[in-house]
Amino acid sequence: MTARPLLTELRLSAGKKARLHRILFQYGLGNGTAFFLPYDQGLEHGPRDFFPNPASSDPRYILRLATEGGFNGIVLQIGLAQKFYWDYAGEIPLVLKLNGRTDIPSDARALSPLNARVEEAVRLGADAVGYTLYVGTPAQEADFEQYRHVRAAAERLGIPLIVWAYPRGEAVEAKGGKDSFYAVDYAARTASELGADVVKVNFPHPERRANVKAPYDGQYSTQQAADAVVRSAGRTLVLVSGGTKAGDEAMLEKARESMEAGATGLIFGRNVWQREHDASLRLVGSLREILAKYPSPMP
Amino acid sequence: MTARPLLTELRLSAGKKARLHRILFQYGLGNGTAFFLPYDQGLEHGPRDFFPNPASSDPRYILRLATEGGFNGIVLQIGLAQKFYWDYAGEIPLVLKLNGRTDIPSDARALSPLNARVEEAVRLGADAVGYTLYVGTPAQEADFEQYRHVRAAAERLGIPLIVWAYPRGEAVEAKGGKDSFYAVDYAARTASELGADVVKVNFPHPERRANVKAPYDGQYSTQQAADAVVRSAGRTLVLVSGGTKAGDEAMLEKARESMEAGATGLIFGRNVWQREHDASLRLVGSLREILAKYPSPMP
Amino acid sequence: MTARPLLTELRLSAGKKARLHRILFQYGLGNGTAFFLPYDQGLEHGPRDFFPNPASSDPRYILRLATEGGFNGIVLQIGLAQKFYWDYAGEIPLVLKLNGRTDIPSDARALSPLNARVEEAVRLGADAVGYTLYVGTPAQEADFEQYRHVRAAAERLGIPLIVWAYPRGEAVEAKGGKDSFYAVDYAARTASELGADVVKVNFPHPERRANVKAPYDGQYSTQQAADAVVRSAGRTLVLVSGGTKAGDEAMLEKARESMEAGATGLIFGRNVWQREHDASLRLVGSLREILAKYPSPMP
Amino acid sequence: MTARPLLTELRLSAGKKARLHRILFQYGLGNGTAFFLPYDQGLEHGPRDFFPNPASSDPRYILRLATEGGFNGIVLQIGLAQKFYWDYAGEIPLVLKLNGRTDIPSDARALSPLNARVEEAVRLGADAVGYTLYVGTPAQEADFEQYRHVRAAAERLGIPLIVWAYPRGEAVEAKGGKDSFYAVDYAARTASELGADVVKVNFPHPERRANVKAPYDGQYSTQQAADAVVRSAGRTLVLVSGGTKAGDEAMLEKARESMEAGATGLIFGRNVWQREHDASLRLVGSLREILAKYPSPMP
Amino acid sequence: MTARPLLTELRLSAGKKARLHRILFQYGLGNGTAFFLPYDQGLEHGPRDFFPNPASSDPRYILRLATEGGFNGIVLQIGLAQKFYWDYAGEIPLVLKLNGRTDIPSDARALSPLNARVEEAVRLGADAVGYTLYVGTPAQEADFEQYRHVRAAAERLGIPLIVWAYPRGEAVEAKGGKDSFYAVDYAARTASELGADVVKVNFPHPERRANVKAPYDGQYSTQQAADAVVRSAGRTLVLVSGGTKAGDEAMLEKARESMEAGATGLIFGRNVWQREHDASLRLVGSLREILAKYPSPMP
Repeated sequence: MTARPLLTELRLSAGKKARLHRILFQYGLGNGTAFFLPYDQGLEHGPRDFFPNPASSDPRYILRLATEGGFNGIVLQIGLAQKFYWDYAGEIPLVLKLNGRTDIPSDARALSPLNARVEEAVRLGADAVGYTLYVGTPAQEADFEQYRHVRAAAERLGIPLIVWAYPRGEAVEAKGGKDSFYAVDYAARTASELGADVVKVNFPHPERRANVKAPYDGQYSTQQAADAVVRSAGRTLVLVSGGTKAGDEAMLEKARESMEAGATGLIFGRNVWQREHDASLRLVGSLREILAKYPSPMP
Repeated sequence: MTARPLLTELRLSAGKKARLHRILFQYGLGNGTAFFLPYDQGLEHGPRDFFPNPASSDPRYILRLATEGGFNGIVLQIGLAQKFYWDYAGEIPLVLKLNGRTDIPSDARALSPLNARVEEAVRLGADAVGYTLYVGTPAQEADFEQYRHVRAAAERLGIPLIVWAYPRGEAVEAKGGKDSFYAVDYAARTASELGADVVKVNFPHPERRANVKAPYDGQYSTQQAADAVVRSAGRTLVLVSGGTKAGDEAMLEKARESMEAGATGLIFGRNVWQREHDASLRLVGSLREILAKYPSPMP
Repeated sequence: MTARPLLTELRLSAGKKARLHRILFQYGLGNGTAFFLPYDQGLEHGPRDFFPNPASSDPRYILRLATEGGFNGIVLQIGLAQKFYWDYAGEIPLVLKLNGRTDIPSDARALSPLNARVEEAVRLGADAVGYTLYVGTPAQEADFEQYRHVRAAAERLGIPLIVWAYPRGEAVEAKGGKDSFYAVDYAARTASELGADVVKVNFPHPERRANVKAPYDGQYSTQQAADAVVRSAGRTLVLVSGGTKAGDEAMLEKARESMEAGATGLIFGRNVWQREHDASLRLVGSLREILAKYPSPMP
Repeated sequence: MTARPLLTELRLSAGKKARLHRILFQYGLGNGTAFFLPYDQGLEHGPRDFFPNPASSDPRYILRLATEGGFNGIVLQIGLAQKFYWDYAGEIPLVLKLNGRTDIPSDARALSPLNARVEEAVRLGADAVGYTLYVGTPAQEADFEQYRHVRAAAERLGIPLIVWAYPRGEAVEAKGGKDSFYAVDYAARTASELGADVVKVNFPHPERRANVKAPYDGQYSTQQAADAVVRSAGRTLVLVSGGTKAGDEAMLEKARESMEAGATGLIFGRNVWQREHDASLRLVGSLREILAKYPSPMP
Repeated sequence: MTARPLLTELRLSAGKKARLHRILFQYGLGNGTAFFLPYDQGLEHGPRDFFPNPASSDPRYILRLATEGGFNGIVLQIGLAQKFYWDYAGEIPLVLKLNGRTDIPSDARALSPLNARVEEAVRLGADAVGYTLYVGTPAQEADFEQYRHVRAAAERLGIPLIVWAYPRGEAVEAKGGKDSFYAVDYAARTASELGADVVKVNFPHPERRANVKAPYDGQYSTQQAADAVVRSAGRTLVLVSGGTKAGDEAMLEKARESMEAGATGLIFGRNVWQREHDASLRLVGSLREILAKYPSPMP
């Protein structure tokens, strides 16, 4: 297990600390862990994600779910934030996702274009901004350049920056794929080197060893891999994402190992809102029980 | 049927509300529905579209038709707006279409370049601006970037933004084509996620199932598809476009199903002005009869 | 009588024409005349103006009155516009008053500072902007400079500019006072020379001849004076203001002479809302009867 | 009594609503009332204010007091905010006071210069900004101009603007003084007309009638005066300031009448921290009991 | 041997001299030589570099090592600098590496994107900035353009610019590879021609003669090659890099030849921190012994 860093030792500016403190200690469990509800899949995958639970198509349903479930924040793209967040402004923290794309064109050279600016997030009352960095994409020059401006603006305005560190693109596919321990670990480190305050990673798969660089082609348990990823992130807090909908037990085990590794929390979307209402709250309850076991000391 | 959202619950700024209110309640039927006359086909397809009714080549003819037919607005590119709108300024709302292209080059990687700025629309007295977003195009990064600036300018100046959400490009063709339920639904959602106030979509064809993503490869009626599209748009008002000229009955049925689904209105160009003058007014009359059955409550 | 200029012969841009057309032909009597309800006295004089009719302190009361009375527009400062206009956006045109001051300090060197920008007016959905130009003030250099930027911005954004042309300051007082025919005529001409689209003047008092420049020290009827003022304004439309509350008959006579002189309309505030509700609507009704006798031809 | 406006009917942007919601419903009593602890007197009056209770000279003492006392926020100038707020960032809302002055020079032509920008407040994690507007000062042109930029920046960044509306300057003194009902009422209205979200006023003294404008020279109770002031502020929330240290009973009565009039809360500095620690908490407790009787409905 | 240029004859601005003087004479051996500890491999290669010595994953470990080992500076990317340098600010000079990339995509057309600006380096208290220039890359136009802005900013702010002059890309591979004497010599000269204050080069391999341009296809000793490289750099100080971890003796020999050639110092990362703690300090000690033999005269 890697010790989760304390909020007070991250060398954050007052504004970033104020906002992260709010997210971590005044919402959700209020114990320094975080559980976010992401809702940008309508753009990233299209409305097909809403078919398992048609109610989930309506942002109002999701916002209600976020407050009912005691989440630490909700993640929206600019359009939904502008038209739906007002009703809940101040009741649940907003993470404005600044870039995003449809999955219709090929992602061989994936780059997620900016759809909103940091200043817009501040104007909307968001407590954090999100940016998808496609680690390893052939378009990495344009991506890093775009990211750099986001990072600088987030610093200027004192708002925490959460990086969706996603290995992606043809070069990643050629080196073991986007979920390998190698790729996830590299992605976490890249976010940390480039100044993310929080990094969202997929759970690493150490068993995907084909074509990955040494020494990742060795034998590692998922716990070892998770530990390494959190260690690579250093003073960048780690959120583990849920990914595509999976069985409850697998989900809970993934959450347990993540928290044991020193992650700060979870960011689960489809696994939550693709279930019908009560089932989603039941899963949320189980996940909160896990988070409750990993409190940070109150600063 | 999806309930059409009220103008007062869209979280619009005062300027956007003032202008949409004007369009929806002080022109046309004045009952909260909208019927727009688009006239940018001279750029998009070339003058070939005017051959069925040569009079339609003259913007004065179209502007007169728009007032005679009781439309809620007319859509023009910058050049025609500058040279012809003055005569009708204040009598019929103007939607300035900000981007547009010829259809001479391939649209495999389609991108519709900006031809005018939002500020020019305001200076011309327009009550809304239009932007064509090619959803799914390989050029989506450039498109989203260009769009983002338009959205921000429209917000800054309080003018409603109508997005022509058109699935387009080689990746769309490979996944079922631009009129499939899958593509139209994704396009509507994309416009909503990216902050359109109004979205113009083509009528969805649920029978085009080849190569589309699950669950769109299932059996859906056109009414089910239309309902879903309006639901995906959420607080973004929906206009259904007429597309290429078709028979009267098909046209009316499409209009009926759209309004039944909760659309706010119609945007029919060629189907109107490619008929000779009296026939076009007769069709307009029939369509207005449909719109009259779907009033919004006066705010 | 001076012939009132037609909207179509003022050489307005499309945007200015669209907005003035809307004000003049789609609100109020819709006959090309205008009747505005100004409500910036809370800043210019303080809440003491509301004591005669305490309900008038509430902007909601005033906005309701403006729609009930069939006014062509309401005049607000930025703060009230932002917090109260949304509810009526699109139902009644807004004139955003861009500058304004308290009357606590001396007005010997009066200058009315800017409180909002033209762009904010556009964003709020205003159909015109208002600017107080203190004609003859010792601070005229700063005033003209400030005005010039407002005029340019109004042109750039196609929004009509209404100038409150107020003779004011110690030099005006030394030359016959702010209500003399001399001062009002000079003020109207100044607004016209400096590019106002509409000018608001006080009714001229040709009998105040002491210390005024020749030939204003001669004998003129009020009708002659009013005619001259409208003539001086040329293609700048004239609104005559109500000033402090006065008796009904004086009020109506002033209105009659103004319209007879070729004014486009009236702008009466305290004379309207300092009466109790029904009395104010009765006065409004009488004034509308006068305006109804001076239609402009529909363009 | 004037009905206190609801947070949801103030036509605030999402960002302003989020931040005000936080202040009003997640800190202090959490019932929609507000109790702020101002601590800018070290600049405004100098350290002489700290002599009654030397501990009060230390910002750490004050920040601790603010959390112990359950305040809704603390008010600091930029220097103290930068050096002391980090320790409490996220635990107690910060109001960054943007302008301020020493009281050494004459305030005949008072103007309070800007010491920090709105963007710095956002970067520090502040939930509101404060601006002193000297209503009626001969320097009102410079003051309004300076204020306008602050207002626009606060809008752009979605942060609530609290205006210290202080009648001040030789013209105010000549018209009855800064605490008269006339002056306070005019100040509240000025803040409202110019777009303040919240206004801080001194408690009005209707008995100071010498030289004030009619009808303020009539007989009014303090409750009538307080009611009028809140009514003049309209959708601008009212905070009543404590002013110089006074006896407990006078203090509590002032608070009671303010809340009864529809004020949103109190902003008491010297009356709190010039007492020794336990006495100050006792007074705070008594004031909170009053606030507890005037809850707003949870939005 | 080429005579190492004196700091005082480099025609540096005062700011650049002040900072280089600090690095060269107040840290490390204080004798005008330099020994830097680079730590950007987590981005350039990913966390795999940390597996040989897991402690090295933690920036705190590295910063401690840098002070224990008496280095002249540490090299960090922006993210680690922001979150970890504060603890050591003032104790060890910081070189902020401004650009960097992952090694996942192909480097056939390598370009290292900017991740931070020179101004950020100054704000962080850095004493130098680092920039990777890929000499010979097909992307050289973009690289030179990007570099030019960095150089100009470094000049404007008086901070020394260290160029990582790396031959790279498909054209270099076709002409003998990135470590050939030809390529390294050309890279050193390029940095000098383009205004680097310090250049970091790999040790040249004169034996790699296949496909290199004449006369580099002749016979040269490593010492001759090293001499030539330092001579090519002229008044640009030379640092020789360690590259991948190698045996101690090879390492020391390389260092000796470099210093003999007139280099100013060394920049060894993986060779240092991939060893366990005490072994790394032992190697550092041996390298310092070499540097001690090549002092510059105290200016």
